[in-house]
Amino acid sequence: MPDAPLRLLIDTDPGVDDAVALVMALRHPRARVEAITVVAGNVGLEHTVRNARYVVELCEADVPVYAGAARALLREHRRAADAHGEDGLGNLGLRPRDPRPALGHAADVLVERIMREPGALTLVTLGPLTNVALALLKEPRLASTVRRVVMMGGAANTAGNVTPAAEFNIWADPEAARIVFRAGLPLTMVGIEISRAARWTAEEIRELAALGTARARACAAFLEHALTVAGQRGRVIPGEVFGAGCPDGTAMAVALEPEVVIDAEQYYVDVETHGELTTGETVVDRRGVLGRPPNTTVVHAIDVPRFKALVHAACR
Amino acid sequence: MPDAPLRLLIDTDPGVDDAVALVMALRHPRARVEAITVVAGNVGLEHTVRNARYVVELCEADVPVYAGAARALLREHRRAADAHGEDGLGNLGLRPRDPRPALGHAADVLVERIMREPGALTLVTLGPLTNVALALLKEPRLASTVRRVVMMGGAANTAGNVTPAAEFNIWADPEAARIVFRAGLPLTMVGIEISRAARWTAEEIRELAALGTARARACAAFLEHALTVAGQRGRVIPGEVFGAGCPDGTAMAVALEPEVVIDAEQYYVDVETHGELTTGETVVDRRGVLGRPPNTTVVHAIDVPRFKALVHAACR
Amino acid sequence: MPDAPLRLLIDTDPGVDDAVALVMALRHPRARVEAITVVAGNVGLEHTVRNARYVVELCEADVPVYAGAARALLREHRRAADAHGEDGLGNLGLRPRDPRPALGHAADVLVERIMREPGALTLVTLGPLTNVALALLKEPRLASTVRRVVMMGGAANTAGNVTPAAEFNIWADPEAARIVFRAGLPLTMVGIEISRAARWTAEEIRELAALGTARARACAAFLEHALTVAGQRGRVIPGEVFGAGCPDGTAMAVALEPEVVIDAEQYYVDVETHGELTTGETVVDRRGVLGRPPNTTVVHAIDVPRFKALVHAACR
Amino acid sequence: MPDAPLRLLIDTDPGVDDAVALVMALRHPRARVEAITVVAGNVGLEHTVRNARYVVELCEADVPVYAGAARALLREHRRAADAHGEDGLGNLGLRPRDPRPALGHAADVLVERIMREPGALTLVTLGPLTNVALALLKEPRLASTVRRVVMMGGAANTAGNVTPAAEFNIWADPEAARIVFRAGLPLTMVGIEISRAARWTAEEIRELAALGTARARACAAFLEHALTVAGQRGRVIPGEVFGAGCPDGTAMAVALEPEVVIDAEQYYVDVETHGELTTGETVVDRRGVLGRPPNTTVVHAIDVPRFKALVHAACR
Repeated sequence: MPDAPLRLLIDTDPGVDDAVALVMALRHPRARVEAITVVAGNVGLEHTVRNARYVVELCEADVPVYAGAARALLREHRRAADAHGEDGLGNLGLRPRDPRPALGHAADVLVERIMREPGALTLVTLGPLTNVALALLKEPRLASTVRRVVMMGGAANTAGNVTPAAEFNIWADPEAARIVFRAGLPLTMVGIEISRAARWTAEEIRELAALGTARARACAAFLEHALTVAGQRGRVIPGEVFGAGCPDGTAMAVALEPEVVIDAEQYYVDVETHGELTTGETVVDRRGVLGRPPNTTVVHAIDVPRFKALVHAACR
Repeated sequence: MPDAPLRLLIDTDPGVDDAVALVMALRHPRARVEAITVVAGNVGLEHTVRNARYVVELCEADVPVYAGAARALLREHRRAADAHGEDGLGNLGLRPRDPRPALGHAADVLVERIMREPGALTLVTLGPLTNVALALLKEPRLASTVRRVVMMGGAANTAGNVTPAAEFNIWADPEAARIVFRAGLPLTMVGIEISRAARWTAEEIRELAALGTARARACAAFLEHALTVAGQRGRVIPGEVFGAGCPDGTAMAVALEPEVVIDAEQYYVDVETHGELTTGETVVDRRGVLGRPPNTTVVHAIDVPRFKALVHAACR
Repeated sequence: MPDAPLRLLIDTDPGVDDAVALVMALRHPRARVEAITVVAGNVGLEHTVRNARYVVELCEADVPVYAGAARALLREHRRAADAHGEDGLGNLGLRPRDPRPALGHAADVLVERIMREPGALTLVTLGPLTNVALALLKEPRLASTVRRVVMMGGAANTAGNVTPAAEFNIWADPEAARIVFRAGLPLTMVGIEISRAARWTAEEIRELAALGTARARACAAFLEHALTVAGQRGRVIPGEVFGAGCPDGTAMAVALEPEVVIDAEQYYVDVETHGELTTGETVVDRRGVLGRPPNTTVVHAIDVPRFKALVHAACR
Repeated sequence: MPDAPLRLLIDTDPGVDDAVALVMALRHPRARVEAITVVAGNVGLEHTVRNARYVVELCEADVPVYAGAARALLREHRRAADAHGEDGLGNLGLRPRDPRPALGHAADVLVERIMREPGALTLVTLGPLTNVALALLKEPRLASTVRRVVMMGGAANTAGNVTPAAEFNIWADPEAARIVFRAGLPLTMVGIEISRAARWTAEEIRELAALGTARARACAAFLEHALTVAGQRGRVIPGEVFGAGCPDGTAMAVALEPEVVIDAEQYYVDVETHGELTTGETVVDRRGVLGRPPNTTVVHAIDVPRFKALVHAACR
């Protein structure tokens, strides 16, 4: 049944790369985004809701946007505004006509939608996992009723981006992430290293902008913002291409077209929540030292040209 | 001054790979081992002292062996007898004629020897860092008087061997390791991954044994024991050669002949001591996220044939 | 307006002393219990729901019982069945005619009821705080809309009952407790020490049973069970009366008749969640060392005869 | 043998109350102080050594002063200069003629003196336990060779003085304290609450000064300093006398004249080292919840007039 639609719930905290990922999903020919649930993350909840609404309007889509948690389960909200701009979308002045979310709490929406049609819905998570954890706390049976979960988060092979050990989405709410990894979900993790191997050069961003549509211009502007931030940080890592990462876009590619994955492995993964230096680290038992059954499919590599082609197609 | 001797202090917990490393040092033409200080680690202190004495006798060397800490600073002693045998040397029945250590505590010996001749002595650590930490606690100026410290310990690029995150020597006394990394020493770290890329196959072990000396037969038997343990564990990691690791030997090669290093980088490294899943992890800031000055030279790759040739030369 | 009813929500995990407290509330002339929300705690959720239903039937009350969390936010469920019996009510074979909860999740019920009538409802918590924390995570404005929260939990002056530092309700879900203490609620804490000063002797329990009603016989049997457990533990603390503690009853007395409090103080209180020995400790800043504004009224002493008279009145 | 001298080693970080305690010991007719070992604590090591030397000269005593650890085992040095003055002795300009310590590290001195005469020496600790922990790490048999250890530190019944849970000496090096409590020593703990019940009023301090000796004037000045600090802090705790605490003096009284103790109990005590709010708490299992054998005699009350008389006698 190759033409069956891919029915998606997207939990997100836009964020420039979330925005690109949302465009990818909202414009994908086979995907049907049934709801967008929003969480505080890259910026505060008020901004992430507004930004999600903006992208829905940009894509002329008719998808409800629900607001969820304004802070982590146990920690104060910690932003990444230095990477995404104060408004979360690169301070480009992008505003939706209607910034208001639909009625209902994001976690309740996740529970109701997934439980109503067991096996029907794929959840893509692009932000801290607070909403998803709240949904699981309220309804543990989500683990066996969701079709699939694709998560942008963590660092499997290399180092984090917020601390030497932790990636932002996990670090921002490590307790929520632990709940998600331990829930027994059909979980695929797309870590930060995937986007490091799939960066957009200035030239590639110009080519995207050249498509000329409003979506192309917006997505190019988001990547341009990420490129500027990368330049300001000025970390040069031997063997890496300089460019704009788009972590959420890589995860969305994995959700939309699983064949984009060219290397993945199943591991037992858990999250450190008590470390002094390592809180938020996704501890991937890559050598099977613990002898536990795997709980996560960890993506090691994707087909980068195909990922970029997906973004192009969505922006046309 | 190419002929100046390399004057060494070796802190160790033999252990089969410690034994190979000790042979390498005691028989190296340029090295002069001035003292061996012993710590509990792979097996209990009584055994590690006896085993160090055995290797000294095997090499017909005249080097004093000093006993140090019988347990970690803050934790009960945790052995690795499954990897080294109950007696620490593969249960081969190897015993020294004289098992007694010299008078004096290992930590005091480290302090006295290093302080007496600033800049003269290189310290090689092959076990948990309890003795070294005690020495630093008593005399912080060791950091600027020791010539160099080469440590076998930690995991820089990949996963641990005791937990998904931690290597045995660090895990066995993480607080001591933290003291050492934070002391400001001229420190080179040779992590567990170096020995994974320098394993001894059954054929290579046979070739070593064929040298026919007592030392060759003993070292081959130690590696044979490690090979058997690796086979019993039965973890097959894609892309890795099956064989006997000799972590302490790789670190000793780095100490004896620094040119064996073919890739290394300077990083800020610290040790997690409070994690639930990550205690004992060497947190290497490989991407410079923290912006702190490096405190450790981390070895990424060595010249494997040269390392094995060094072992051969020592066993001849 | 002395005759205005005291409108209550009760979150509970019966438990023998929860059962006594429920009888106190359901039979109090001025109180109106609007809903009972149930959490796993002393025993598993299936049992605590059934037991709450049993007490409602015992009191011939028409109060809905809602099921909530079956485990702590971040930890496996840890029972206190040794204190309450395998079935949570002393293994007396007490079963409701109808064990089923009403529809809806306890946390949602708390949110809806409290938000619907700001300032109207008092919440009494007798178990681990998982449901209350979930409600606060979903709707932080509960803090300013609930009339009052009276909590049985923690240890202000003396030692815990599960560990040297922690009382069961807090220890069972310390992260939930932390969320509650940090929420800015109008919170009164009735710690474990209050019940230690208000124990029921065997003679007092006989007098209660002698009232002859079904409720009196049941409550006396519950206290009898607690007395037996206390005897088995055999800890004799100098200066303490031997008898059956009824912690939840003391908290309910404080909720029902605030004048029962004869000594209380306002403090800043927080919960340790990362300790090795102290997780679940209610850290009460009794000397104002932190200089933070108080967030909790901590009860230091109650009028014990009046508390016991309240139980008698409810059982008549 | 009532006239046998009480042979003392004193480990200390003077500090105004340490100074009073040292005077008490150096002037006690039955006591013979054999060595004073000094640790960083109330102020830095340079100052604490100098201050110890000052008190020795003040008492015209011939007792060697040895320097030890300048910082905690695992933590940066944290002072209490707000309580003791920048120079540790109330900024009164008190300086010894000869500020230099004797040769040898405090920890080594403790090991050598105690091991040389098993059962002969009583150790009184008045500061963070770094030196004592180092001694125990080097020589665990101290536990069975020391005659007795009397420690000023911790909080058994009430709250801490640095945090709601922790007293300064334990908080300043909690890992060292843990080593000491776990060592199996014949240990008596005199917590901070003992001095709260033995405060010196302004009138009492004047009476002490009126003795007119140099020692009396110095000790009165030290207590005067503590009184001023207490006034500045301005915490009024119901039921407590306002005055100058002298914690180290109370512990010294217990060491010098054990009959000063009027209430004490044996408990299992351990130290929290991993808490977020409770690090440095002495966790006293006052109700025997853990079922472990006691490792500490905890003093609950002393004869306050006798303690003050001891100070008077020493100052005469």
